[in-house]
Amino acid sequence: MAIYVEWRQSVSLTGTVVKWLAVAMVVPLLTGLVYGEDTLVFVASMAVAVAVGWGLEQVDDSDDLGTREALLFVALAWFAVSVVGAVPYVLAGWMDPAPSTLAHPVNALFESTSGFTTTGATVAGEISFDRHSHALLIWRQLTQWLGGMGIIVLMIAILPEAAVNGAQLMDSEAPGPRLQKLTPRIAETARVLWLVYLAFTVLYVLLLLLLHYGGLAPEMNVYSAIAHAFTTLPTGGFSPQAESIAYFSPVVQWLVIPFMLVAGVNFALFWHLLNRDVDLFFGDPEFRAYLGANVVISVVLFVLLFLGAAPTLEIGGTTAGNLENALRQAAFQVASLLNSTGYATSDFAKWDAGSQIVLLFAMFVGGSAGSTGGGVKVVRWLVVMKVLRRELFTAAHPEAVTPIRLGKHVIDEDAVRGVLGFTLLYLVLYVVGTVFLALDASRVGLAITPLEATSASLATLGNIGPGFGFLGPFGSYVSFPATSKLFMVFLMLVGRLEIIPVLALFTGGFWRR
Amino acid sequence: MAIYVEWRQSVSLTGTVVKWLAVAMVVPLLTGLVYGEDTLVFVASMAVAVAVGWGLEQVDDSDDLGTREALLFVALAWFAVSVVGAVPYVLAGWMDPAPSTLAHPVNALFESTSGFTTTGATVAGEISFDRHSHALLIWRQLTQWLGGMGIIVLMIAILPEAAVNGAQLMDSEAPGPRLQKLTPRIAETARVLWLVYLAFTVLYVLLLLLLHYGGLAPEMNVYSAIAHAFTTLPTGGFSPQAESIAYFSPVVQWLVIPFMLVAGVNFALFWHLLNRDVDLFFGDPEFRAYLGANVVISVVLFVLLFLGAAPTLEIGGTTAGNLENALRQAAFQVASLLNSTGYATSDFAKWDAGSQIVLLFAMFVGGSAGSTGGGVKVVRWLVVMKVLRRELFTAAHPEAVTPIRLGKHVIDEDAVRGVLGFTLLYLVLYVVGTVFLALDASRVGLAITPLEATSASLATLGNIGPGFGFLGPFGSYVSFPATSKLFMVFLMLVGRLEIIPVLALFTGGFWRR
Ligand SMILES: [K+]
Ligand SMILES: [K+]
Repeated sequence: MAIYVEWRQSVSLTGTVVKWLAVAMVVPLLTGLVYGEDTLVFVASMAVAVAVGWGLEQVDDSDDLGTREALLFVALAWFAVSVVGAVPYVLAGWMDPAPSTLAHPVNALFESTSGFTTTGATVAGEISFDRHSHALLIWRQLTQWLGGMGIIVLMIAILPEAAVNGAQLMDSEAPGPRLQKLTPRIAETARVLWLVYLAFTVLYVLLLLLLHYGGLAPEMNVYSAIAHAFTTLPTGGFSPQAESIAYFSPVVQWLVIPFMLVAGVNFALFWHLLNRDVDLFFGDPEFRAYLGANVVISVVLFVLLFLGAAPTLEIGGTTAGNLENALRQAAFQVASLLNSTGYATSDFAKWDAGSQIVLLFAMFVGGSAGSTGGGVKVVRWLVVMKVLRRELFTAAHPEAVTPIRLGKHVIDEDAVRGVLGFTLLYLVLYVVGTVFLALDASRVGLAITPLEATSASLATLGNIGPGFGFLGPFGSYVSFPATSKLFMVFLMLVGRLEIIPVLALFTGGFWRR
Repeated sequence: MAIYVEWRQSVSLTGTVVKWLAVAMVVPLLTGLVYGEDTLVFVASMAVAVAVGWGLEQVDDSDDLGTREALLFVALAWFAVSVVGAVPYVLAGWMDPAPSTLAHPVNALFESTSGFTTTGATVAGEISFDRHSHALLIWRQLTQWLGGMGIIVLMIAILPEAAVNGAQLMDSEAPGPRLQKLTPRIAETARVLWLVYLAFTVLYVLLLLLLHYGGLAPEMNVYSAIAHAFTTLPTGGFSPQAESIAYFSPVVQWLVIPFMLVAGVNFALFWHLLNRDVDLFFGDPEFRAYLGANVVISVVLFVLLFLGAAPTLEIGGTTAGNLENALRQAAFQVASLLNSTGYATSDFAKWDAGSQIVLLFAMFVGGSAGSTGGGVKVVRWLVVMKVLRRELFTAAHPEAVTPIRLGKHVIDEDAVRGVLGFTLLYLVLYVVGTVFLALDASRVGLAITPLEATSASLATLGNIGPGFGFLGPFGSYVSFPATSKLFMVFLMLVGRLEIIPVLALFTGGFWRR
């Protein structure tokens, strides 16, 4: 079979991205210096990144990509970055007389992929500064912030810039506000969105430190503030604290909620807001649906928790009859799981079936298009709901031809078909993932419940992070067999890259003329 | 709001169908006479059916229906038949000094709807001839056989005959072989399919009796043979035995398997076979996919069971290392759950998570279009899979326009959209059902697991019958609150009538011009 795709160009550009990873490693390097930790791990990792990146770059000297080369590049780059990003975990293990679970290459790759895909599922075992260096834990946090930047640049700039037919790639995205119309050039748009992303990160750090120096958040020091800013805006969910946000005071928890909500909003809308175009912000159908879903599901959960759906928990306290705590736990967990962040302030894996089903339902929603949130995405569900309403209408009015509208825009029927296809593909992959993980667990004799298997599939494919049972918010994926972990690495990458660009690589048609 | 639908005509025709129910009640009446039981229950029930039917008929004297009137009629008829079919359960309770759970009107409606929709979910409590008369138990079986006849006539004959635009209704069906092309007139086709249905029922009874009189199936007497024939061909799953098919010898269980498989095949294909058109039979893409899915899933399950996925059970025995039993349990349970029959020969609710996930997966498949099987249906999954493959292809070949083909037929893009819409609607309803049942259980303090809640939704919407946990194959739905039972009555009806005809009634657009 003659291969029609100029894969060398994709490999070469992947090398460039990997080389830049060395620059990002300056952050953990400096952190290590500040805390007086051994910096050899990151010096060596930087050398690996430069060497691997340079080596891949030599495969070709062109970086002018066609559509398929761009698709291939995206998948290769995310995978390569995850592999090279895992090097510090492995090296840190080599240098530790009693290495953590992260020293195992499969675990390191899982944790790194979980970072760069902003998933937040962990195999780190005990998470504490006794066990891991400040440098390594800030690297873990940083991978998510970089992943979030990558998502923005992927969706808005890199692909359309690199591809002969960039619009095609946008087609596989949900139709949201026309991002490319915001500023004349697409790359300019990406820069604007990065600025929004950076501005919220900085604002968030400042507010957390304000609480800290105001005496309201004694544990939220500079390190913690930066570490959590690195993982809130990209809907990441990693925390350097084993107890996640439950480690911090209620006032911190209340502050985290609006920033989690922001992370799931189309960043382009904030640009409108900066331009004082308030109507465009509040009139956006996806924004309204996203906010509405958060409010409605939170209220349902609040009622359940207030009436006693959760027992009194060591992490999370008592919600039955406790207005403030029931409200906080409901709003926090929904804000966190709906848009795929994955932070927790209560061990929701111990709540009753009704509230767990509500959380599982929220997990299917996802963030907005143009945000860092994962999952199916709100705008796609809006289109799906409108299509279903149209099907019902057509039953009685077979002659009627009604276009699908979002706000004032008519959605093209090809885009509608693309949305339906994506949504079904997501659900099919979710089911296949569940079956694979359950069978693989049966194979090695790992005790797993159907809920654990299905939530592992959803939490990795949807880039959410925690699930139920032993992979609850304070649990770990470490007990899965290596085959399952590698499969979940695949699910995290597939989910993060909007499924189709990755899966297409596995079809014969992709490589032929 | 002016109502544009001539609902009186629909109500009137519903009356006619209800009146015919009195004729069907001759079967339990005769059964009662044979066994020397009190026949007052069925005499009274016949009177109710005639009276109610006659009353409804008086609403209008026309029976010439338009499209929407036909849709309304189908929903009304199935509901009215379920209500009147519940009368014997209630009356039998009144006459019993220690009435069973079926005496409660909500339970009676649930059991009757479960019968006429061929679901097979039960709230009968203890199922035995000590507790219920032979007449009442044969009525329970007969409701499923009548429901199966109804499905055939619904899909092929009544709707297209009654409707101005019959083809539109067929559009909401999956595209299968063009049934209406088999014989010149659609009503003729329905008659042919009824003959196939009847012929298989008779053949099945004869084979079961052959085993009985050959000494291989001592428990399978005339009553049992007829009772099980009434519930196998309609993929019903009710049994007059509390232990379902596990009550009978392995040879009976082996014989039931091929007849369950037959019940999920497009009955039109057997007509081809009678005409010795073997290629059309074995070449049908849906038939091949249906058989293939049964074989592949059975093999996976066989491996799991043989390797010890199920403990040694009182009902079901030992499968670990037992070739015959592992093969039989795997083939039986898959044949039963894949096409929505719901019989069982082992308490699969006690199997391990891996094999339960496999069964749950099988439950999503469904029967073939033109069979009595419920669920999404094989042909729709075929179309979905082809659409997903096309989406992946389009990622690399944006310029390509490839039609969806099934065998030699090109599927119209409107039909493709209808299939995607139906499949998503099914999944959305399944999720909404899960959330409702979990919340309703929370409300009344019923202990339920997420797996139980989700399998209750799937088992009723997909007309399967049994689920997992307390609603396993030898369990019961009786402990659900009345609100949940009524909601499941709705799910059973919606699922059986292919969702759209029923849900459309709840949209304002249905009733306006
Ligand atoms: K996440
Ligand atoms: K059934």
